[in-house]
Amino acid sequence: MDKADIGIIGLAVMGENLALNLLNKGFRVAVYNRNPAKVRAFLSGRGSGLDLLGAESLPEFVQSLAPPRRIMLMIRAGSPVDEMLEGLLPLLSPGDIVIDGGNSNFRDTIRRAKYVEEKGFNFVGCGVSGGEEGALNGPSLMPGGSAAAWPRLKPLLQAIAANVDGVPCCDWVGADGAGHFVKMVHNGIEYGDMQLIGEAYQIMRALLHMHPDEIGETFEQWNGGELDSYLIEITARILKTKDEDGTPLIDRILDTAGQKGTGKWAVVEALNEGVPLTLIGEAVFARCLSAIKDERVRASAVLKGPSPAFAGDREAFLNDLERALYAAKLTSYAQGYALLRAAAATHGWELNYGGIALLWRGGCIIRSAFLGRIKEAFDRDPALHNLLIDPYFAGKLEACQGGLRSVAVAAAANGIPAPAMFSALSYFDGYRAERLPADLLQAQRDYFGAHTYERVDKPRGEFFHTNWTGEGGTTAASTYTV
Amino acid sequence: MDKADIGIIGLAVMGENLALNLLNKGFRVAVYNRNPAKVRAFLSGRGSGLDLLGAESLPEFVQSLAPPRRIMLMIRAGSPVDEMLEGLLPLLSPGDIVIDGGNSNFRDTIRRAKYVEEKGFNFVGCGVSGGEEGALNGPSLMPGGSAAAWPRLKPLLQAIAANVDGVPCCDWVGADGAGHFVKMVHNGIEYGDMQLIGEAYQIMRALLHMHPDEIGETFEQWNGGELDSYLIEITARILKTKDEDGTPLIDRILDTAGQKGTGKWAVVEALNEGVPLTLIGEAVFARCLSAIKDERVRASAVLKGPSPAFAGDREAFLNDLERALYAAKLTSYAQGYALLRAAAATHGWELNYGGIALLWRGGCIIRSAFLGRIKEAFDRDPALHNLLIDPYFAGKLEACQGGLRSVAVAAAANGIPAPAMFSALSYFDGYRAERLPADLLQAQRDYFGAHTYERVDKPRGEFFHTNWTGEGGTTAASTYTV
Repeated sequence: MDKADIGIIGLAVMGENLALNLLNKGFRVAVYNRNPAKVRAFLSGRGSGLDLLGAESLPEFVQSLAPPRRIMLMIRAGSPVDEMLEGLLPLLSPGDIVIDGGNSNFRDTIRRAKYVEEKGFNFVGCGVSGGEEGALNGPSLMPGGSAAAWPRLKPLLQAIAANVDGVPCCDWVGADGAGHFVKMVHNGIEYGDMQLIGEAYQIMRALLHMHPDEIGETFEQWNGGELDSYLIEITARILKTKDEDGTPLIDRILDTAGQKGTGKWAVVEALNEGVPLTLIGEAVFARCLSAIKDERVRASAVLKGPSPAFAGDREAFLNDLERALYAAKLTSYAQGYALLRAAAATHGWELNYGGIALLWRGGCIIRSAFLGRIKEAFDRDPALHNLLIDPYFAGKLEACQGGLRSVAVAAAANGIPAPAMFSALSYFDGYRAERLPADLLQAQRDYFGAHTYERVDKPRGEFFHTNWTGEGGTTAASTYTV
Repeated sequence: MDKADIGIIGLAVMGENLALNLLNKGFRVAVYNRNPAKVRAFLSGRGSGLDLLGAESLPEFVQSLAPPRRIMLMIRAGSPVDEMLEGLLPLLSPGDIVIDGGNSNFRDTIRRAKYVEEKGFNFVGCGVSGGEEGALNGPSLMPGGSAAAWPRLKPLLQAIAANVDGVPCCDWVGADGAGHFVKMVHNGIEYGDMQLIGEAYQIMRALLHMHPDEIGETFEQWNGGELDSYLIEITARILKTKDEDGTPLIDRILDTAGQKGTGKWAVVEALNEGVPLTLIGEAVFARCLSAIKDERVRASAVLKGPSPAFAGDREAFLNDLERALYAAKLTSYAQGYALLRAAAATHGWELNYGGIALLWRGGCIIRSAFLGRIKEAFDRDPALHNLLIDPYFAGKLEACQGGLRSVAVAAAANGIPAPAMFSALSYFDGYRAERLPADLLQAQRDYFGAHTYERVDKPRGEFFHTNWTGEGGTTAASTYTV
């Protein structure tokens, strides 16, 4: 019997769909799951009649693969990956490739790449985005790790990836954890995009008292313009979906969301890198706030705010809202790219920023026309420090910031929470502020802790201390910082 | 020669000042520093003529202490503490107490407490706040760790701590890392308070075009009201301080602040606990943004916003600003206390929330009249879930939210960054929102990833999936979450 081109371990929905995608593209696929019943169910179910080898043991699975082997793990991130590696590595031959397609933390991927490479094999951490539909029909793939593995993976991964204008949404990202880092930032951006859409929805609902159908139509209209994106498209469809009795289904869905994964990691890494990732931070925390529904219900009885009342021009305000969404989204991507840039310097990755935009342009949850604009910005200036100052985007901000301000004003005045919109606006106004009140902050720190400050009329790196009270000592606070 | 009551290791400003504080209270103090020259300098300098033993070696230092020994480390957090423990532990006798008074991460403190206790000694992680002045004249002390050590530490630590209305700002916090955790939250709150004051300053400056003297007077006036606090007091003094040529010194100070420590950790722990700590998060990120001054200066030439213009009633707006500061500060403390509550459950600490407010009421950077109100709130309801719904604070929010809205509106419209004010407002409006747009988010997640949702008309814990496109399979996404 012919050996398989690639093997998939793990038959939850993502593993199954990736296997089917590979089969559709003409590759012979072996599958394995710790629970053999899952393998049998897949072979007799969705995989029946396809060029599929089902293995009931790990040795059988490994033996069914053509060397050098390509083995993709589609299992739960965390210790299951380490455990699977322990079982798998003794069965491998030099040059074999293990791909982790789960949502692993990039620090684990850095560690695993080193470990697996030391044993003579290749390890690739591959971000996979697009959910079950993407996995089946063409995901966005973000592989990074052992560079030697790429030539042998490229034909398969680029074949199954999404494809936009003839360009596959899959390319080599960089060494060790680079692929999973980029996937993490992607997920953070996804958190931000979803939160922004939610806020726009909330504002239309609470302030303009629009019906879900109308809101759906508005999103549909926006999807025809510069906000053209998968998330806006599905939002329009969701809002028009009815429950069995004809009620908008959205009104039956409980407003509590979870967060445990990569969105949170992105914010932690931003804190580690010292890069403001405020919008995604607010989006993650907004999920946390949504989760304590009972507390909110109790609080809603105690804490009253203004009754939302809209008096202006509705069409003009909807236009403001569209522009606000664009400006806020741009800000979020600018923050995400700034994080990529800082992490690349920290971890020694040579990231292709424009190329990363292309990886996300299709297949994944954040796919959008907008990403093509980001690619163009990095084509204009590959060393661009911040997307906001690219000439095209700066022009867009010029045109859209009024909308963002108007929406922020309306949300603040009417008591509608818009944390992501707010954070976008304050980041934009902060980033373009030649002077921030950190001068006062430095004075405070010098006052209470002798932490010293720099001066505007002296070269950087010279530090000054003022004896503010006339009482402090001369001992410098060399080792203590707040 | 009589043995010393307590020994201090580390003679940077905090160690020196704590030693002087102990000496002032009549305790005999031994000091040690890795560099013997520092010991000699202290003994012949600020410590000359005092009841002070200087040791030039660690064994000599340990021998100079009365058993069971009390040894306080005032050294840089991180590996230096572990290294010092390795040198110190072999010299100790059972029951001796090592206190880490640095800004250690509470996770390190949990690990060290276990390690030191296993060797038969006591370990206490003690948060010390108040900067150099507090250390000298009465800091806020937050000790936690080996409970057996507390009776022997209590007389010394409560003697040197700040004291408000006869209550020392020092009490036992809880097991292992509880003291350092509370100190971490304190520091996060301090970040938030400083950021809020900075934003109020920026708004007065950029929108009302007030002179630093006038702004200083405004803060001084606020300090006579409900905002009465150390940070407001020193802000007033700072703004009135002149450079040698008579220019306000604030205008000579470079507006770049650092962040590396406990403020960041607080946000990371909030993300781990799933507790929104948005205001402190924005404050940490605001420091990061201040740090990239060169980038901001370049961006300020490219990205233009509105020219701030104020047309309303100045006195009324200053009153709004005072109320905004109060409401935002309250929100930040509510978030910090929610984090304490979640961490206590996670780590098995029995925290006395009202008592913690008393620890911070004097000595430390965030000391304020306000903290007495927090104590009263927990006296009313020790199980209070969120400070915002305490009757007194709910009433204050009723009175102050209009000011916060007015300030947020003015900042948004006039292009003045106010990230912490914004985040306070959106948290307040989100916390009191019976319904948040997370319903849409759950629908999106179910649409693209079959993640399922709960329904408002079904019991919690029942999960539903809609086949939104009519194309998806029936395989459940049991292991994949975004």
